Amino acid sequence: MSPLKPVNMPDIIEMLHHLPGPDLAALARAQQREPQLTKPPGALGRLEEISAFMAAWQGRHPPRLETPRCVVFAGNHGVAARGVSAFPAEVTAQMVANFLRGGAAINQLCKAFGAELSVTALDLDRPTQDMCDGAAMSEADFMQAFHQGMEAVREGDDLLAVGEMGIANTTSAAAVAHALFGGEAQDWTGPGTGVQGQALNHKAGVVGEAVAFHKPGIEHAIDALRRLGGRELAAMAGAILAARLLRVPVLLDGYVCTAAAVPLFMTHPQALDHCLIAHASAEPSHRALCAKLGKEPLLNLGLRLGEASGAALAIGIVKGALACHNGMATFAEAMVSGKD
Amino acid sequence: MSPLKPVNMPDIIEMLHHLPGPDLAALARAQQREPQLTKPPGALGRLEEISAFMAAWQGRHPPRLETPRCVVFAGNHGVAARGVSAFPAEVTAQMVANFLRGGAAINQLCKAFGAELSVTALDLDRPTQDMCDGAAMSEADFMQAFHQGMEAVREGDDLLAVGEMGIANTTSAAAVAHALFGGEAQDWTGPGTGVQGQALNHKAGVVGEAVAFHKPGIEHAIDALRRLGGRELAAMAGAILAARLLRVPVLLDGYVCTAAAVPLFMTHPQALDHCLIAHASAEPSHRALCAKLGKEPLLNLGLRLGEASGAALAIGIVKGALACHNGMATFAEAMVSGKD
Repeated sequence: MSPLKPVNMPDIIEMLHHLPGPDLAALARAQQREPQLTKPPGALGRLEEISAFMAAWQGRHPPRLETPRCVVFAGNHGVAARGVSAFPAEVTAQMVANFLRGGAAINQLCKAFGAELSVTALDLDRPTQDMCDGAAMSEADFMQAFHQGMEAVREGDDLLAVGEMGIANTTSAAAVAHALFGGEAQDWTGPGTGVQGQALNHKAGVVGEAVAFHKPGIEHAIDALRRLGGRELAAMAGAILAARLLRVPVLLDGYVCTAAAVPLFMTHPQALDHCLIAHASAEPSHRALCAKLGKEPLLNLGLRLGEASGAALAIGIVKGALACHNGMATFAEAMVSGKD
Repeated sequence: MSPLKPVNMPDIIEMLHHLPGPDLAALARAQQREPQLTKPPGALGRLEEISAFMAAWQGRHPPRLETPRCVVFAGNHGVAARGVSAFPAEVTAQMVANFLRGGAAINQLCKAFGAELSVTALDLDRPTQDMCDGAAMSEADFMQAFHQGMEAVREGDDLLAVGEMGIANTTSAAAVAHALFGGEAQDWTGPGTGVQGQALNHKAGVVGEAVAFHKPGIEHAIDALRRLGGRELAAMAGAILAARLLRVPVLLDGYVCTAAAVPLFMTHPQALDHCLIAHASAEPSHRALCAKLGKEPLLNLGLRLGEASGAALAIGIVKGALACHNGMATFAEAMVSGKD
């Protein structure tokens, strides 16, 4: 059963105010089991937190990890024409072809961690409008991408790794963050695929220009995503919402993915409670975004690739956490003496 | 073919001065391939470093991960009688039984990441001497444990996760670190299984007393390990040396494992070049030890269990790294445009 789809942006906002919460009974069962396992209390650190999180948001105990899915959304950006990326815009479609042939990093990581990979190319031959001249997307375009994101999540998925591909999309992510959190454009603008020096200043200038153009007209956080984001950002937001409705815990990837999630959080502070941030991206502003969301990334390995690569890598950590929580013997079973 | 075994401590020192280095040809092949892969340069962060490390220390390209082994050594400590742990000493043997029945965290993690687990119980019914009264081990006892560590590593292992179990062994680890790096006893003493307040002060006092007793007599770093360590620490040092000789890259676990490795490093600064520190333990002094070794841990998830649990978890990260390095398409293969 697919979740009910919002028909427009006010509908999304309405849904975000009526989200299902965690399953407190499943959470309690996880919390009851954990201190009985043969280890000092708390000795598995964040693995214990992950097990409780998975139980609470899957709504079952023991939590399981048998059918993780990785969803990657690709979009093209009008703003790419302004020279904000180190790579040309045609690379988006070339990389989608690479995903479909199995040659990208995300293909190898999904294989390594047993995740099914779904790739959704969103109207690549129809880039969004240059956000310095107008809204990146009409409401119809935005809703279409949002729905495609929702549809990528399936009932029965037990963990969702969310990511993207889109030349120029760190520019869009920076604009969304700058519009919603203020500060200066350069606070939110980073090298992306590798722009530096003068090119990086230019990129920050584009971010500042776009935000200045739209700021007076932004009606709410979701509208900021429509105006400054891109189809793959809208789709990621849709996938995150659908996952909540289908009881699928989520691993957010890096900077662009986290920026796409922010408008949900700004609309309702509990909207991302079913999400963990998989890793701290090397994109410098990602840390600040994580702090705004009150979330500590699981991994910090200097990745800055996107494609859900950091999220897929973190599937392995979740796998380890659940293996321990579900498989370890209790003190009673193992006849091990407890703490003095 | 097993590596030649040192007959005494001077022999260990001699071997540490004549260790094989990295395979520079394999390293060069890894470094040549990496920038051809379909991603922006450096976008996989530390995963790229791991691939190069694995090639260099396995001495082959592509590096592989098919037969990882996890070795866990268990020992008992005379100093446990001084009440330095939150758990009674019999827990060491009980946990070894738990390892053998498959009920501990390390069993689940090895299963999750496809590692073979070898557990070596080292004379558990014969604890080391209380290090406050004399050397923890005679040279003969030390060498026996060191050899058992060496024997646990097999030719054909392609990655080694090293860890331990031993009630009171964070006290031994703290004493080794304090003896070799100076400072105050409390700088190196942490809660271990969970001692706090007055009990933690008492533990630091025991560390200080032991180090003060032995310091004038310590002849070299390996001797510090004999006097203040324990059988499982000696065995871990032996396993790390054997791995170097057999071209097996190593993942060090947390505080006790890292402390056992320190005397090798103090004897020769390149002795741990074939090792990565798998994770930053929640044991507060672990970070300082890592800094002394010039190594940044891969994971930071608040684990403080030992048993090689953090090292086993990091096998998943290595798996992800090699999957990308070995499996990704190049720009030429995928017909993806390069950087502008």
